[in-house]
Amino acid sequence: MYSERVQHFLDKKRINVGDEVRLIKDKKTYEGILMPRIELGDKDCLVLKLRNGYNIGIKFERNVKIEKLKGHKKLEKFPARRFEQKPNLPKVSLLATGGTIASRIDYLTGGVKMAFKPEEFFFTVPELADIITFKKIRLLSSLASEDLWYKNWQQMAEEAAKELNRGARGIIITHGTDTMHFSSAALSFMMKNLNKPIVFAGAQRSSDRGSSDTVMNLICSAHVAGYSDFAEVGICMHAESSDTFCFFTRGTKVRKCHTSRRDAFRPINDLPLAKVWPDGKIEIMNENYKKVSEGRIKADIKFEPKVALLKAYPGSDPKLIDHLVKDGIKGIVIEGTGLGHVPTSTPEPERSWVPHVKNAIDSNVPVVITSQCIWGRVHPYVYRNLRILDSTGVIWGEDMIPEVAYVKLGWVIAHTKNLKKIKEMMLTNYAGEISKRSDPRTFLY
Amino acid sequence: MYSERVQHFLDKKRINVGDEVRLIKDKKTYEGILMPRIELGDKDCLVLKLRNGYNIGIKFERNVKIEKLKGHKKLEKFPARRFEQKPNLPKVSLLATGGTIASRIDYLTGGVKMAFKPEEFFFTVPELADIITFKKIRLLSSLASEDLWYKNWQQMAEEAAKELNRGARGIIITHGTDTMHFSSAALSFMMKNLNKPIVFAGAQRSSDRGSSDTVMNLICSAHVAGYSDFAEVGICMHAESSDTFCFFTRGTKVRKCHTSRRDAFRPINDLPLAKVWPDGKIEIMNENYKKVSEGRIKADIKFEPKVALLKAYPGSDPKLIDHLVKDGIKGIVIEGTGLGHVPTSTPEPERSWVPHVKNAIDSNVPVVITSQCIWGRVHPYVYRNLRILDSTGVIWGEDMIPEVAYVKLGWVIAHTKNLKKIKEMMLTNYAGEISKRSDPRTFLY
Repeated sequence: MYSERVQHFLDKKRINVGDEVRLIKDKKTYEGILMPRIELGDKDCLVLKLRNGYNIGIKFERNVKIEKLKGHKKLEKFPARRFEQKPNLPKVSLLATGGTIASRIDYLTGGVKMAFKPEEFFFTVPELADIITFKKIRLLSSLASEDLWYKNWQQMAEEAAKELNRGARGIIITHGTDTMHFSSAALSFMMKNLNKPIVFAGAQRSSDRGSSDTVMNLICSAHVAGYSDFAEVGICMHAESSDTFCFFTRGTKVRKCHTSRRDAFRPINDLPLAKVWPDGKIEIMNENYKKVSEGRIKADIKFEPKVALLKAYPGSDPKLIDHLVKDGIKGIVIEGTGLGHVPTSTPEPERSWVPHVKNAIDSNVPVVITSQCIWGRVHPYVYRNLRILDSTGVIWGEDMIPEVAYVKLGWVIAHTKNLKKIKEMMLTNYAGEISKRSDPRTFLY
Repeated sequence: MYSERVQHFLDKKRINVGDEVRLIKDKKTYEGILMPRIELGDKDCLVLKLRNGYNIGIKFERNVKIEKLKGHKKLEKFPARRFEQKPNLPKVSLLATGGTIASRIDYLTGGVKMAFKPEEFFFTVPELADIITFKKIRLLSSLASEDLWYKNWQQMAEEAAKELNRGARGIIITHGTDTMHFSSAALSFMMKNLNKPIVFAGAQRSSDRGSSDTVMNLICSAHVAGYSDFAEVGICMHAESSDTFCFFTRGTKVRKCHTSRRDAFRPINDLPLAKVWPDGKIEIMNENYKKVSEGRIKADIKFEPKVALLKAYPGSDPKLIDHLVKDGIKGIVIEGTGLGHVPTSTPEPERSWVPHVKNAIDSNVPVVITSQCIWGRVHPYVYRNLRILDSTGVIWGEDMIPEVAYVKLGWVIAHTKNLKKIKEMMLTNYAGEISKRSDPRTFLY
């Protein structure tokens, strides 16, 4: 809401947010769409979206004159700006899946509208036109990320492979943030012989909030997709809460760690691959990456959806394992405590997870152990309880985060049903998901 | 293992780790128990535990002479040092529950032995005798923390109340680290009218490893229990990976965030209450705490064990909710994604959690929403999917971490079966578990 005096002034002129207006102040004339007030911004500051796509704030004072544009009519659709491609810039394809990055204030209703047309990204971030040229823009879905699943991952992987094989220099996937790290893990495993960057970008605040992170995240993603030497799937999001630079972090070593902060995505058990500045500077932080090269990419999208992620905690009922097995589960990842513990030598024998884990494995359901600590690495031997659990034949997930182990298990089981082979594949490092050494700098980075 | 030459030297004399020996070097004589080599330490450095309880390292050189003590016999039990109480120091009671802090190399077998007698703490940390005097030392259990549950929480609470009501100035509870934050949360809710410090202390490395954190954690805990002004339940563990100082963090705002680091316990959505140095300096970091006072304490230990913690993620099967309800669950905490999402408007209707959540609530099972992000706060309104979930009547857990909401729900349901009252109690701040404002400094602290 604008301040009372500004609102009064607008009401008198019967001007609403979303109207095309001409505004005159200090002998300068501005034409554009009247936008809602910038959140947390000055309530006396009128915001116009100019025809070139940029927003401008104009402090309301007595000398401000405003009028609806002649021939003005209430907008029926969002005014797409013609996007001027510069053909010499790197060709990048954009796949849109939905999420906050694709939401904005609806100028027609004033509410927040999910999913707009991909073309509208350029309206929000006109700077993109100076960084890359778009080979293709495809709307794959208009879903909040909590509603995405393996079919969406498969679609992203197939479309990305298709675009890269047809000459795209990189891919940007816009995506809701909640489960972005699940999707980035899935594509990390599915993209075989990946030789170009695939960059996930999202936003914690919708594009038309003053505090939106959409603009910088998209600009930095364009730099990574168009110019970087990373043949990796990764997430490009704010590294700090202010608009300084982004991290580009490997898709298997990153996690949303805050409900609302713009710098919510943190590297886990690994350094980010790079710092990326909106001016295009890319500072490598982690030399351990695959370099861009030529060749054909394959999307290896087989995925077994019947896998589950289960948390062990004091009093957790291991009967849930039996329920899962009965319902036909094909693999289970356990989020253990500490080094990978589950209730084991409990005074209440019915709460010990070990017999239930053993039953699952005896029923040919592989069980992978990870840690709910998030940071660190599981270990099968330090304590007696770990050795007891180990004797059931569980797979110790090294330093994989639970979410990544879950996605990987679904992918692995789709490729083999053999328990020994599943173990071997789970412990093979396909996409940087297992680090040999733990870098002490990576805790709480 | 000592180096080959040291081992050869010991073998020649038939001396083993655990033997009482006399060692002579540079005309100085040392008598004590030969200890295992300090982990990561010099392989040529012999370690003796002297009679006063301190360890000493002696570099092996040609002039070193060693012999078994005359009258030496293989140790049958651990040699307890007589603990000299200084009666003028603050009286603190220690409750031992098991865990790594109570484990050490067994001098008889060379393996790691869980749980030793509480008296043996003084053998490991003789410095304690100069800080506090022990009113009482009680061994409550000898369990790894993954095997503890609500009955243990109840016992800790009752014993702590008893000791405080009988004049203890503070309580130290030694505890395994894996689920220490569940126990500290439980005691936070159970200790009614708490007016003295209750300090949980643990160790990430067992006491006889060179890198053990036992000594500093116990010393700092003694300072908090004996001298601080906190009438709070909290965890006192290394703040940094080196032996600089500890954090004392409120028991409802802390979490084990690394499988093995000594500074694994991090404050979540709150600043630590204080930095505590081993020399006794206590620097308050968070003015929002209850002060030490007089009065009677009650242990309000009622607890409903039939509660569960369930994680929502892409593809997570909401049928688990039905299984829990069928098995007689009385309350469920969901670890949602981001601001508290569950799969909601999914293309596969059978994967939407909303109808199952609604069924649970209709069956009088309260459902509390928290976030698996760990940091931040859930929110019922920002997105359409949140409002859909909200319409089922879930309880939005504010900025409570999932583990704390789980423990709290078990405690709340034991006090009332009325859904409205449960919601009211869940949203009442009993022990600092809900912060009104989010302090931006507390992310990744």
